[in-house]
Amino acid sequence: MKSESSFEKIAPNYRAIFFDAYGVLRNSSGIIDGVPEVLARLQQTGIDCYVITNDASKSPEKMRGYYVHPQRGEIFAIEKIVSSGMLASEFLAGKVGSGKVAYLGKPASAYYIEEAGLEAVPVAEVKNPEEIRCMVFLDDEGFDWYRDLNRTLNLLRKVNIPVIVANTDTSYPVKSGEVAVAVGSLASMIESIVGKTFIRFGKPDTQIFSFTYERALHAIPDLNKRQILMVGDTLHTDILGANQFGVDTALVLSGNTQKEKARLQIRSRGIIPTYLFDSILT
Amino acid sequence: MKSESSFEKIAPNYRAIFFDAYGVLRNSSGIIDGVPEVLARLQQTGIDCYVITNDASKSPEKMRGYYVHPQRGEIFAIEKIVSSGMLASEFLAGKVGSGKVAYLGKPASAYYIEEAGLEAVPVAEVKNPEEIRCMVFLDDEGFDWYRDLNRTLNLLRKVNIPVIVANTDTSYPVKSGEVAVAVGSLASMIESIVGKTFIRFGKPDTQIFSFTYERALHAIPDLNKRQILMVGDTLHTDILGANQFGVDTALVLSGNTQKEKARLQIRSRGIIPTYLFDSILT
Amino acid sequence: MKSESSFEKIAPNYRAIFFDAYGVLRNSSGIIDGVPEVLARLQQTGIDCYVITNDASKSPEKMRGYYVHPQRGEIFAIEKIVSSGMLASEFLAGKVGSGKVAYLGKPASAYYIEEAGLEAVPVAEVKNPEEIRCMVFLDDEGFDWYRDLNRTLNLLRKVNIPVIVANTDTSYPVKSGEVAVAVGSLASMIESIVGKTFIRFGKPDTQIFSFTYERALHAIPDLNKRQILMVGDTLHTDILGANQFGVDTALVLSGNTQKEKARLQIRSRGIIPTYLFDSILT
Amino acid sequence: MKSESSFEKIAPNYRAIFFDAYGVLRNSSGIIDGVPEVLARLQQTGIDCYVITNDASKSPEKMRGYYVHPQRGEIFAIEKIVSSGMLASEFLAGKVGSGKVAYLGKPASAYYIEEAGLEAVPVAEVKNPEEIRCMVFLDDEGFDWYRDLNRTLNLLRKVNIPVIVANTDTSYPVKSGEVAVAVGSLASMIESIVGKTFIRFGKPDTQIFSFTYERALHAIPDLNKRQILMVGDTLHTDILGANQFGVDTALVLSGNTQKEKARLQIRSRGIIPTYLFDSILT
Repeated sequence: MKSESSFEKIAPNYRAIFFDAYGVLRNSSGIIDGVPEVLARLQQTGIDCYVITNDASKSPEKMRGYYVHPQRGEIFAIEKIVSSGMLASEFLAGKVGSGKVAYLGKPASAYYIEEAGLEAVPVAEVKNPEEIRCMVFLDDEGFDWYRDLNRTLNLLRKVNIPVIVANTDTSYPVKSGEVAVAVGSLASMIESIVGKTFIRFGKPDTQIFSFTYERALHAIPDLNKRQILMVGDTLHTDILGANQFGVDTALVLSGNTQKEKARLQIRSRGIIPTYLFDSILT
Repeated sequence: MKSESSFEKIAPNYRAIFFDAYGVLRNSSGIIDGVPEVLARLQQTGIDCYVITNDASKSPEKMRGYYVHPQRGEIFAIEKIVSSGMLASEFLAGKVGSGKVAYLGKPASAYYIEEAGLEAVPVAEVKNPEEIRCMVFLDDEGFDWYRDLNRTLNLLRKVNIPVIVANTDTSYPVKSGEVAVAVGSLASMIESIVGKTFIRFGKPDTQIFSFTYERALHAIPDLNKRQILMVGDTLHTDILGANQFGVDTALVLSGNTQKEKARLQIRSRGIIPTYLFDSILT
Repeated sequence: MKSESSFEKIAPNYRAIFFDAYGVLRNSSGIIDGVPEVLARLQQTGIDCYVITNDASKSPEKMRGYYVHPQRGEIFAIEKIVSSGMLASEFLAGKVGSGKVAYLGKPASAYYIEEAGLEAVPVAEVKNPEEIRCMVFLDDEGFDWYRDLNRTLNLLRKVNIPVIVANTDTSYPVKSGEVAVAVGSLASMIESIVGKTFIRFGKPDTQIFSFTYERALHAIPDLNKRQILMVGDTLHTDILGANQFGVDTALVLSGNTQKEKARLQIRSRGIIPTYLFDSILT
Repeated sequence: MKSESSFEKIAPNYRAIFFDAYGVLRNSSGIIDGVPEVLARLQQTGIDCYVITNDASKSPEKMRGYYVHPQRGEIFAIEKIVSSGMLASEFLAGKVGSGKVAYLGKPASAYYIEEAGLEAVPVAEVKNPEEIRCMVFLDDEGFDWYRDLNRTLNLLRKVNIPVIVANTDTSYPVKSGEVAVAVGSLASMIESIVGKTFIRFGKPDTQIFSFTYERALHAIPDLNKRQILMVGDTLHTDILGANQFGVDTALVLSGNTQKEKARLQIRSRGIIPTYLFDSILT
């Protein structure tokens, strides 16, 4: 790792910066104090900024609403927000095409199915399994776990359809140090019982980085990977995936990774960021 | 595998027979027709019969009530029923001793905690995490999955206590070809998120066979393992565990293992029973 | 799956076709009879053909030499051959930059390190662990397994460096029905012992498909994913990865997947190709 | 965990003590200074002492030779040494009975096959796969890894036989801080490729504790589990297995577990010993 004094000192070395959302820009209280100003300064310098998030619980338009500067208003244009749900949606549009898709999640998460031109059916409301073209795990909320996980299990034993996990996270922080079981864990449990192989979207898989890079090439046609920095708070998703994709990486300690354990984890896991900062504010 | 015409033909070669419950003696409609008569004949010949079941949802006394002969009444003496819950109970009595134990399961499953002289507290009713001496996964029913799995996750992040899985099964048959997520799968999901190592009781672990063998030695002091047969319907629990324990094994096709796939699974998994029968009736 | 009579009948529906090498175009006896003629016909129709292979044992130039048409000579231009080793090489050039890289593999596999401008050092010849910038698993041959796997294990306990697996395959066919342990299995064994997270290149990860797609865009700038077909003989690498990447897929039964088990495996694994053919010749 | 000043202070609370060998009684230089005197004092007090070791590389008779008191000579009677190889041998005698058994390991490790009355054949010398009744992984030394692991892989694809892993350890210390890949890791690699389920003997599985407990009952017929202490240097084998078996446990820091990490590992893994000591000397 390189020893650098602060994030804002090294940021100008890059033409594009990809930010993880939770633990970097936001926490359970909303956007982190000082973050809007940092982002505004980066954008003024001409650095192209993106949010890359493992999330399929709401539309990018709703996510965009999280990032507001007190004076300047919304910080990100809609095309600068990339969620794992968008990759699931792209898969559904390209590989499934039409028909009914069963899902687990809140109604708002069904956006990613409908956006692909398909009909979203909550698992609890599936009447005829033979009609279902695909099953999607979108969010851990919005359904009765006991009833609907058992229904999902039996649906997947009856019909041989692709199964999509639109957010691979295993848990997520909620409030005051507590965490919640994420939809990625529910999906892994069902996958293990049925013995099938689900298709997963989200970091650390490099596909979400490729997707964002293609977007960035529209804005900066001669952008190369060496000019991109990924900033994240989690070694095994943000840093591992971005390292494999081939861009520089900064681990920040404002989220999942505890300050006193960061160096130990980097050493024991062998996932090595280019930089280590307390936060993007320091 | 040996080619033998029927279960009742080879049974007299053994002094003790261990039976799995579900899929061998019972199914979703209750005790299988003809099974009481087979068991009665074995017992008349002097063969010592036991039930070994991965189940912690109810007391052995209640389980015993499942096995009734139309004329002779209850088939098994209470000491002939061995459940994985009993091993969990033995652990709690020996290693925890006293205090409060949190659990997931129906109230009836709390029997295994109370039998050990401990106070059973549903996870939802835990007030002071510091008071909890142990956490036990007993049954998949009797609680709100969303609320109580999340509470369990956070409890285990706050206090460092032993966690017991009193039934390692991952799913179980319910009715008309459907299955349900078993408590073993719920436990594995939480274990994977917290990164701790839970203590598991039940087949294929050999401990439940040792426990039953010790009981059988009380009845037949000179019994050796070569004189015992385990009859089960599941390769990776009943047959794998009993093979490792060192007793002969019979796979029956009246439950989990489908007739047309049995030989393929034996070959692909490499778990080889001594005998293969359609059921204990044939 | 769609019911189609033959590969050559549906091929003209695509503008680009990606082929797995082993089991599709080649086998242990060399190029499969009839394949050169099929490829020539495709190319004459203007279909852009690529080879995508999990292989880091030799350079693309050498791989190219495998595909020769009796009359027309070499079938593929060098830029049409894509190996997992090339992704490893790109990673090394971009993320490591300069210095010494330790490796396991034949001398010919060191091509992928040297191509990145780095110095390749067989693990057996590492003198000063502190000098090593990265460790790469390239091939299962070319070293003493006992000595050099143990050396690798101890090297990775001494220094915290990125570890690259340049071919994720777990085994590969050799001759007359026999298989060999592939370097991906050796890497997983060492990864499991040291507890670190290695960076893997190759199918089913989508990165190799993105890499090839970018190349194809140079030839056909308006190519979209719906106009691409991936042809492979292995469900859990070729078909799974290409499905996730979002292109159509054809499973052929001329390699890893046995004809009599194909439909059973598709059903039990839930990895569903768009088409199923005996081979690209039929 | 209980706070106690020293091992020798709490030892008299137990009637039998089970010791792990490596890291507790011995290290790479031989028996640890002071250990013979501690063991002599325990035995003089009438405490029944056993060695329980994951090892199938040599006979118990040879292992016994490691434990010598300068004045009193051999410390352990032969029946006080229990190795995982002995459980494998018991399995072979009871479940295989007669015929040829293929193995990986040094010639000395074949003791465990021959002791069961079977003919031991090194994998490299197997001529007719159909004759082989069982395959046993005994030791990581004594064979050519490249040639013989590949032969083992192909043997197991040809014949459907039980596969025994007689030592489940994944690595072991050799000298001056270095470690070596253990036979358990080699077995897991082959198991993962062939997709079969191997039968494993050794800690943390409780079978080796049951086996030793049965022996101890011959010496002390009224011994109960609460009167037994297991002393080990490894949380996930010695302590996990003995906890599940139901006896008290002491973790010592003279081997695998580093002093500065012990409490962190106990907390993060959730494997909780009854006591924690620097060594049995303190």
